[in-house]
Amino acid sequence: MQKQFLPLASAFLLAASASAQSLGSSSSSQASAAFPLYDEPYRPQYHFSPPMHFMNDPNGLVYFNGTYHLYYQYNPTQLVAGNQAWGHAVSTDLIHWQNAVPQIAIPEAITGPLAGQIFTGSAVVDSNNTSGFFTGHPGQALVAIYTLNQPTREVQNVAYSLDNGYTYTNYSGNPVLNHGNNPNFRDPKVFYYAPTNTWVMSVALPRAHQVLFYTSLNLKDWTLVSTFGPAGVEGYQWECPNLFPVPVQGTAETKWVLMVGINPGAPQGGSIDQYFVGTFDGTTFTADDTAARVMDFGKDFYAAQTYNNDPLGRTIVVGWMSNWQYTQVVPTTPWRGVYTLPRVLSVLPSQNQTQTGSLLVQTPISLNDLHDQTLFDGSAELGTGASLSVPLKGNSSFEFETTLVAQPTSGQLQQRLNIDISNSAGEKVTVGYDWSQGQVFVNRGQTKGFSNPFFTNKFSVWEANADNSIKLHVFVDRSTLEVFVDNGIQVCSTSFYMLSGPPTNLQFTAENDDVTVQSLTAYSLKSIWR
Amino acid sequence: MQKQFLPLASAFLLAASASAQSLGSSSSSQASAAFPLYDEPYRPQYHFSPPMHFMNDPNGLVYFNGTYHLYYQYNPTQLVAGNQAWGHAVSTDLIHWQNAVPQIAIPEAITGPLAGQIFTGSAVVDSNNTSGFFTGHPGQALVAIYTLNQPTREVQNVAYSLDNGYTYTNYSGNPVLNHGNNPNFRDPKVFYYAPTNTWVMSVALPRAHQVLFYTSLNLKDWTLVSTFGPAGVEGYQWECPNLFPVPVQGTAETKWVLMVGINPGAPQGGSIDQYFVGTFDGTTFTADDTAARVMDFGKDFYAAQTYNNDPLGRTIVVGWMSNWQYTQVVPTTPWRGVYTLPRVLSVLPSQNQTQTGSLLVQTPISLNDLHDQTLFDGSAELGTGASLSVPLKGNSSFEFETTLVAQPTSGQLQQRLNIDISNSAGEKVTVGYDWSQGQVFVNRGQTKGFSNPFFTNKFSVWEANADNSIKLHVFVDRSTLEVFVDNGIQVCSTSFYMLSGPPTNLQFTAENDDVTVQSLTAYSLKSIWR
Repeated sequence: MQKQFLPLASAFLLAASASAQSLGSSSSSQASAAFPLYDEPYRPQYHFSPPMHFMNDPNGLVYFNGTYHLYYQYNPTQLVAGNQAWGHAVSTDLIHWQNAVPQIAIPEAITGPLAGQIFTGSAVVDSNNTSGFFTGHPGQALVAIYTLNQPTREVQNVAYSLDNGYTYTNYSGNPVLNHGNNPNFRDPKVFYYAPTNTWVMSVALPRAHQVLFYTSLNLKDWTLVSTFGPAGVEGYQWECPNLFPVPVQGTAETKWVLMVGINPGAPQGGSIDQYFVGTFDGTTFTADDTAARVMDFGKDFYAAQTYNNDPLGRTIVVGWMSNWQYTQVVPTTPWRGVYTLPRVLSVLPSQNQTQTGSLLVQTPISLNDLHDQTLFDGSAELGTGASLSVPLKGNSSFEFETTLVAQPTSGQLQQRLNIDISNSAGEKVTVGYDWSQGQVFVNRGQTKGFSNPFFTNKFSVWEANADNSIKLHVFVDRSTLEVFVDNGIQVCSTSFYMLSGPPTNLQFTAENDDVTVQSLTAYSLKSIWR
Repeated sequence: MQKQFLPLASAFLLAASASAQSLGSSSSSQASAAFPLYDEPYRPQYHFSPPMHFMNDPNGLVYFNGTYHLYYQYNPTQLVAGNQAWGHAVSTDLIHWQNAVPQIAIPEAITGPLAGQIFTGSAVVDSNNTSGFFTGHPGQALVAIYTLNQPTREVQNVAYSLDNGYTYTNYSGNPVLNHGNNPNFRDPKVFYYAPTNTWVMSVALPRAHQVLFYTSLNLKDWTLVSTFGPAGVEGYQWECPNLFPVPVQGTAETKWVLMVGINPGAPQGGSIDQYFVGTFDGTTFTADDTAARVMDFGKDFYAAQTYNNDPLGRTIVVGWMSNWQYTQVVPTTPWRGVYTLPRVLSVLPSQNQTQTGSLLVQTPISLNDLHDQTLFDGSAELGTGASLSVPLKGNSSFEFETTLVAQPTSGQLQQRLNIDISNSAGEKVTVGYDWSQGQVFVNRGQTKGFSNPFFTNKFSVWEANADNSIKLHVFVDRSTLEVFVDNGIQVCSTSFYMLSGPPTNLQFTAENDDVTVQSLTAYSLKSIWR
């Protein structure tokens, strides 16, 4: 197979062709004909989304030989889940993505005793050829471990690539793990634990609300070494566990974080990722406490996975920015599904946990290389009712960063600061801070592109500082919103759909008393798809 | 002091007088003049709310000598929190309530070293006169234990009543508990633990996310015996702890439940109650597991308290049906604040926990005594798009109960059943079930009486049965909605505000495929205030 990237024009043709062949309705191919690929309404410009059809969980995130590989749960034939395979995209900087050729790295297995859908899994770099797959193939090392979803059971399979990750060959001894033909046993995340020269797998028993840990010396033979859970929020199912080390901010220490997806049964409704912070000794993860912590105060952050083998040693997470409650009916076409920005993870020292108990810190990778126009650079002191308006000049993909400060008064602060991200028809998404509540809020309800009983409009989180300031770093990309509060100790990830067109204006309005919009920078961001 | 009930007319005059004397603005007394007291817009007719002004947490819930006492956190002079005192109402059946005279059982302490606001607390029946307060007062036994909120500290005070709970005298040795002048140390809930003939108090260290347990032989001298937490959802503050025994359904066993308020920092935003299930040995509560569980999937259930001394031995809980994020700005006047229906608590056997981990079961007390008109009694099979309409005949306070059943098909069920509770202007609250999601949903967003960035519109919870049925018991009372799912194993408590008038119609509509509305009964409910 070719190890080349897919040029845009080819991607368009491929996608249109796939659509024409496989979609019963022609609606999505009409849509793709009406708009250039990657420039349709709602299409994010600096986030990864597949050219066409349905995408859910990120899979097999791994760096190998200069390339970041992004595989993804993919239905290559429809706009809803089904026929799941691993799609594939590549990047050298985690910002610019190109669809790989072939677009499908691991196709659904149609026939034979191991016929089934290719569900979520991970990829590792087997540099020492512990698996033996690479004997006679110098320079090759990528192994994928995934769930084979069959009509009556889920098992774990292994596959290896002899062409740098573009195609995979299934191991002849598959499945490598079968939990008594359990129909719910999935989402293996494997990493190399150097102190014991061992591969470690976390995998979910979804309806028992448990994560099982297995170890292996060769990626083929696995031994159950510990279990974790139930704990925290149980929900209906636990999925997509990830165990990874992260630095403790301001120290030389490392902690281990176990991230687990809940679906359905998120406190906000539907699906969300939660996390536990603790220690890992090579076989057993032990949480430091019994607190329940979710990763996001929005509703669109799920099935997140961390990269293996980052050359800078970072732990980088990517989440699916949707929710199973409505992901199969959102109004995007000819594709559904988008990922968050890659975010570098760390934790606060436990004695410094936030006042609501948060420990995990998510720092978005820098998008400075995409900065185009400077839309604003300055500060503004806003009296009650005053507004600062920042026209977006036709750029509906942008980021802004600011610190909002309320001047103290004798009594309790009453200020509220609304940041309206609006289009010319008056549809808007509002991000704001209310000093009387000490809470950040997000409201995506004033949009008309999508109506659904589960599409909750308002999200909020408590976060307050002694100096009455709050720092916001916000990324907007046509239909995605990511809000990082106080350097990423609270994060809101949400989708939104404006029927009459994407945002055209950014407006800061102070209510009830003065607010200073300090050090506001706003930049339009170049498209990665042009 | 008189131990009589307050007739309605007197209550009105008292309230109007209080308003005229104390409110800076005349808006609320105008409102009370425009509408009969307890018949204003939004006024619940079979739920307790105070005649005027601001109410929050239920306090001192206790049965004594034939009377259920309901004390409540109360600002007798304003429509927002402040000047907190204990208001008082009484009932013989937990359904019909009368405002007591005096309405204030424990007033704010204005002067002296123990000046301060009277915050949340509990009441016990000291039948054996362990406190010595009742020497020479045969037949008297009520003792209140509350938090005194002072400008720089919170301490626990004790007071006793010599007139069956209508007025209280502070103990001369107050405060009985001071935690190093901690400004956040509050909400004592005391009960008698018979096996050791000991009083047990749970009280919160809010910002440490801890519950402290103290014991006493005389209600005056308290010894710290254990602590619990942090655990579960930490939020910013823990408040209003309650420890109580409940029966395990279908067994002769008893479990102990520790209920704790989170505010702010509820997963849904703002305030909510969570609970832990475990064991108690007279000094220490031990949770059976480390799962996080909240009591409600709406946003309006907080600061709940259980009754002491119920003559039938039940554990009955009452919650405040609001949220600190918006309770001080909701559009009700001349009062703010309403309580849930009393609910009898039990737990499922742990091996029978629901598939999302729920254990606590809330069973509303029967309102059969209030049944007025039968609005519907029957079943209906609804084809796709078909509706069953039940006119409310002028009754905006009603209950209905039904089992919704989807007929199985070959593939995944796609049905959705919407129950629209609407007024003639088209404002509506929707309760529904989506079989494709396996989730109950509630939408209060299609109402126009209240706009606020924290007033979230949509709530949902996963709950599915093998036979494709879902049982709903719903109580609507002009501006309150309580949804009990599958006999109370999931509950949604929400407020809603319809600008153009209360609901006039109930409509069941099937989407996507057939749904049977089975054994639907709907009754209008008589007002308890007429």
